[in-house]
Amino acid sequence: MAIDKLRVAIVGASGYTGAELVRLLTAHPRAEIVALTADRHAGEPLDAVFPHLAGLDLPGLVALDAVGWDGVDLAFCCLPHGATQEVIAGLPDGLKVIDLSADFRLSDPEVYERWYGRPHQAPGLQREAAYGLTELNRAEIAAARLVANPGCYPTAAQLPLVPLLEDGAIEADDIIIDAKSGVTGAGRALNEGMLYAEVGEGVHAYGVAAHRHAPEIEQGLSAAANKPVVVSFTPHLMPMNRGLLATIYVRVSAGYDADGLRRVLATRYDGEPFVRVLAAGATPATRHVRGSNLCLIAVFADRLPGRAILLSATDNLVKGASGQAVQNMNVMFGLAETLGLDQVPTFP
Amino acid sequence: MAIDKLRVAIVGASGYTGAELVRLLTAHPRAEIVALTADRHAGEPLDAVFPHLAGLDLPGLVALDAVGWDGVDLAFCCLPHGATQEVIAGLPDGLKVIDLSADFRLSDPEVYERWYGRPHQAPGLQREAAYGLTELNRAEIAAARLVANPGCYPTAAQLPLVPLLEDGAIEADDIIIDAKSGVTGAGRALNEGMLYAEVGEGVHAYGVAAHRHAPEIEQGLSAAANKPVVVSFTPHLMPMNRGLLATIYVRVSAGYDADGLRRVLATRYDGEPFVRVLAAGATPATRHVRGSNLCLIAVFADRLPGRAILLSATDNLVKGASGQAVQNMNVMFGLAETLGLDQVPTFP
Amino acid sequence: MAIDKLRVAIVGASGYTGAELVRLLTAHPRAEIVALTADRHAGEPLDAVFPHLAGLDLPGLVALDAVGWDGVDLAFCCLPHGATQEVIAGLPDGLKVIDLSADFRLSDPEVYERWYGRPHQAPGLQREAAYGLTELNRAEIAAARLVANPGCYPTAAQLPLVPLLEDGAIEADDIIIDAKSGVTGAGRALNEGMLYAEVGEGVHAYGVAAHRHAPEIEQGLSAAANKPVVVSFTPHLMPMNRGLLATIYVRVSAGYDADGLRRVLATRYDGEPFVRVLAAGATPATRHVRGSNLCLIAVFADRLPGRAILLSATDNLVKGASGQAVQNMNVMFGLAETLGLDQVPTFP
Amino acid sequence: MAIDKLRVAIVGASGYTGAELVRLLTAHPRAEIVALTADRHAGEPLDAVFPHLAGLDLPGLVALDAVGWDGVDLAFCCLPHGATQEVIAGLPDGLKVIDLSADFRLSDPEVYERWYGRPHQAPGLQREAAYGLTELNRAEIAAARLVANPGCYPTAAQLPLVPLLEDGAIEADDIIIDAKSGVTGAGRALNEGMLYAEVGEGVHAYGVAAHRHAPEIEQGLSAAANKPVVVSFTPHLMPMNRGLLATIYVRVSAGYDADGLRRVLATRYDGEPFVRVLAAGATPATRHVRGSNLCLIAVFADRLPGRAILLSATDNLVKGASGQAVQNMNVMFGLAETLGLDQVPTFP
Repeated sequence: MAIDKLRVAIVGASGYTGAELVRLLTAHPRAEIVALTADRHAGEPLDAVFPHLAGLDLPGLVALDAVGWDGVDLAFCCLPHGATQEVIAGLPDGLKVIDLSADFRLSDPEVYERWYGRPHQAPGLQREAAYGLTELNRAEIAAARLVANPGCYPTAAQLPLVPLLEDGAIEADDIIIDAKSGVTGAGRALNEGMLYAEVGEGVHAYGVAAHRHAPEIEQGLSAAANKPVVVSFTPHLMPMNRGLLATIYVRVSAGYDADGLRRVLATRYDGEPFVRVLAAGATPATRHVRGSNLCLIAVFADRLPGRAILLSATDNLVKGASGQAVQNMNVMFGLAETLGLDQVPTFP
Repeated sequence: MAIDKLRVAIVGASGYTGAELVRLLTAHPRAEIVALTADRHAGEPLDAVFPHLAGLDLPGLVALDAVGWDGVDLAFCCLPHGATQEVIAGLPDGLKVIDLSADFRLSDPEVYERWYGRPHQAPGLQREAAYGLTELNRAEIAAARLVANPGCYPTAAQLPLVPLLEDGAIEADDIIIDAKSGVTGAGRALNEGMLYAEVGEGVHAYGVAAHRHAPEIEQGLSAAANKPVVVSFTPHLMPMNRGLLATIYVRVSAGYDADGLRRVLATRYDGEPFVRVLAAGATPATRHVRGSNLCLIAVFADRLPGRAILLSATDNLVKGASGQAVQNMNVMFGLAETLGLDQVPTFP
Repeated sequence: MAIDKLRVAIVGASGYTGAELVRLLTAHPRAEIVALTADRHAGEPLDAVFPHLAGLDLPGLVALDAVGWDGVDLAFCCLPHGATQEVIAGLPDGLKVIDLSADFRLSDPEVYERWYGRPHQAPGLQREAAYGLTELNRAEIAAARLVANPGCYPTAAQLPLVPLLEDGAIEADDIIIDAKSGVTGAGRALNEGMLYAEVGEGVHAYGVAAHRHAPEIEQGLSAAANKPVVVSFTPHLMPMNRGLLATIYVRVSAGYDADGLRRVLATRYDGEPFVRVLAAGATPATRHVRGSNLCLIAVFADRLPGRAILLSATDNLVKGASGQAVQNMNVMFGLAETLGLDQVPTFP
Repeated sequence: MAIDKLRVAIVGASGYTGAELVRLLTAHPRAEIVALTADRHAGEPLDAVFPHLAGLDLPGLVALDAVGWDGVDLAFCCLPHGATQEVIAGLPDGLKVIDLSADFRLSDPEVYERWYGRPHQAPGLQREAAYGLTELNRAEIAAARLVANPGCYPTAAQLPLVPLLEDGAIEADDIIIDAKSGVTGAGRALNEGMLYAEVGEGVHAYGVAAHRHAPEIEQGLSAAANKPVVVSFTPHLMPMNRGLLATIYVRVSAGYDADGLRRVLATRYDGEPFVRVLAAGATPATRHVRGSNLCLIAVFADRLPGRAILLSATDNLVKGASGQAVQNMNVMFGLAETLGLDQVPTFP
């Protein structure tokens, strides 16, 4: 008897998160890609846009409105933010959707409007969407029709911070997140600042105190702390393709120290296949998770009394985007959560 | 009923080819790693040496002489050249071996001594070893006890050249190979020239007209041409971790042109899972094979009359080393050749 | 008495060659930048476009038609090819011009039209322009009003090849140029293929047998050989900002060998401040010329009988573009040729 | 009349800071290199060790004890820490010395012993040494015989922090320094962790809460605050050759905000040739100071109430090492401070 496969579509397959979904889903024993859309490339095979995906027996690229949705179980939506709201609002009602854009991550319409400069175009869906940080929101994801896949920075930041705030192990009003990301976090759009010569052999901060991932992080941390949380968040662009490292500076609550924080996290993530809390003294590196859905977390005592340093490393295209999306698919359809996600990191 | 698994050992598991074997074999449904050796690291877990390989339920590192060989079906040998001959000579007689060093690639003792400066220490094994360029030597590999896994440059060079020479489509006395490799081709040994600061933001040729992969290439081409072949071979070191591109300049035989060459190769590799001959006009890039066992080949007419340009791209650690070793294991044990080797390239 | 300074304008100052001219000219004791144009950025200071050029007391960016040419001695023209012809035709008659585009490099109108797909728009200037490969064309440059600054590949290729052809030391009909360039050779224009993620950690050939620098190289080699020369020329894109290495495969004429070729070059470039012929066995690296106007040349005997390998390394933005332009300015105005060009290479 | 030149020696010229000194000093109109030492390379020319420094008319490398010190005005000492104390103690009494190692940076013998694990071997010199952070300690440097050139991280951290602490504009007990450095900060010593393949395409923190630059930073900040200061300091290794970015999180004192901090810094560094305080909103990048002695500083209001973010970018080999050493030489000998240091940054 043949095993039934989920029939999935990828909307917006010509960007990096779309390509990474293809890489992961072709290794998934229970999923089958039945449609790939890319309006500007409709009529082309996918390997015209991504030669590394040649030879995979995939459907050709079509325009979004050419997709026949009958029999499609799930759509991954990989469009730029802003455009996504209307697109998803126009999909068939019964279709499950995992959206990799930022459009449904913020649940508060006012916060959305403040950071994105216009009212949300699908406020009903915005309320309905489940936030897809898998380890922290499984039950809601399992029941959801629409999952808002988290941003890469919010994933790396919340995985260590949420359990500590829920536990009361750290203070909520003194959280500083210094994050470093490879260039694919910015997508494939043409932008002078992303040319090789503008990134190679250098590092700089960007969006200082103004990056749109800050409210997303704060939303999750506020829920965890059960009070409004504001964070300091500074992303930096690194001369590398993939990888995200968050270095997080926190004030430890009375009665805790670095070892205590590590225990809280180790307990919380015990048995989790993709989150690893490192032993004392070990330092995570992005190259040690490259290509995998892993998140490595470490805790160090700071030299400043009463403070600790959290380190969190992911591959921004996998756990920070497409890998977590597949993980969410597995949860939504009752599959083993690691299906299609057992890639060993590729190093060097 | 449980499927029987091959029981394999990796001798010299603390280098890059050893680590890459672990990455590939843990995804192999019919192989199980039962021993990992690294004399300098005996007693440590593998993830002390390679943190990216944590969490994989692997045996610890032991000294070579602590391995119990009973029940081991195959040893991959990843030691530096020179040291390897005596080691393999000392392994149990019945054990199958795939050697990733250069020690058994040259079948002529005189050629070996000329290029390595001393007589071979295991001339019997040298005669016996099968050359492991899988697509071109399957029958011999299938029957072999000892397989000499090819070098990264010889793999990328011979895959396009051997069929053309066998066919008589190109001249044998005018072959120029300009090759570009990522740094992992040089292994993990400490060497000032391999420090980041000595490689980053630059390119240079090395071993000009004197690289030890030249006689290995010539051995294969001479057999293909049925006469002694000498090649021009110049490797270059690239500021990247992985990837190997060979740009090969050839003189076309009478009656052939670039399209004819492409047809010869397309026919020869028709149905091969890992070798792809690109359509006219397409250009291979190493980033499009990263992490996979693929070899992409393209043929262009040169502007110089009577000449053509061949391009051949691989991942030097996969098809150029550990991936081809796993492919050879599959052949030696009658398994489907693609088992454990279906990784989609990781791009970006 | 104050030393008179040349008053120079840079037309098209918002690209990499423009920025590099500013870097070099601000260190030039006899030149003063009096105008900088960039139509899209008119009204902005240069450091809005290039923050690394802040603090230099430079004129602001203006539109081309806002430049007052009275008293300007020289214009460097850094516009894209195609656009340049009309612009230069419209400049004041007495103004000296060094053009860094491709527009005036090919002296034969038919060759220009064949490679660029349209007739030249300023054929009179095309005939008049001197080809600015300084070491090989000083007298003509010194007398010229309009100098066509060579392309980066043609500079690296012709410096070793022209003296050898003029001497008859190599055969003219068997020249193969395999070149590797950093990304700045492609300029700052938006182009998906130049995004960091499309270049990092990989290498590929481009424009195989079809690159527009081929006819420029052939023009120079044909003059040197005194007969039509066709070359094989394959450029490759490297994951680095700067640097160009040409590996050139040649057939040696009867009576010559690699040492003989090296002597021809050493004699020809004896006393030249920017061209260095390395001792036998030394290998040039692009990182050893970074930021300088140097060209390093090496000669190796090939293993193929009767052949030799030439290596030529430059910084594509300096000797391959803006540095040679300044060198030409020095020649045109009778200044010491090294003025402003004494930068020691920056390594690492 | 010939201008008198300082006669300088470079002790330990085979490392990156030694090479960078040579690059800078050969452009210095008032300095002449009269001796270069490298015990392991004695008898070789410098360009055997650093090919990019060929053609510069330099003395050959000699062993330290072969240097004739008569007539030498100044020695730059570029040896590894630990070894340096005895070497400097053995130099002639009248010789001025600028030491680029860590050996004389900490003035408190107890602090030195705690961080370096052994008593200082030249405690008299330790007391005597002036700390060479030029902009902040000119008078003492001008009068010193021995200058301890600061570390790269301490330079980038103290330049923004010291004036703010002296002014009372920030709190002294809540300073968090997240720093990112290129690989040359680690020198040229052989170390597996500095191989290209171990650094490329990744980022990681190291020495978390335990790096030896922390006490050096704290020494300077304590003096500025006039009370003991402890800092949180976390360095990260970046896949790039040069450049250092410090992102510093501070609590603002009552009555101050980000604009106020920026004013304090702008006032303090007004007229300084090498320190630039950027306008509000501008973000420094390491690539914009590459090869230059500049330090770019920016101040941003944090979203966390009462906090601000400081950014400080340098080239770790120039302002973070050899450039500042030359600047100190200029101060010690009464020369214009910018002599030899007017390099425009090299971008891209």
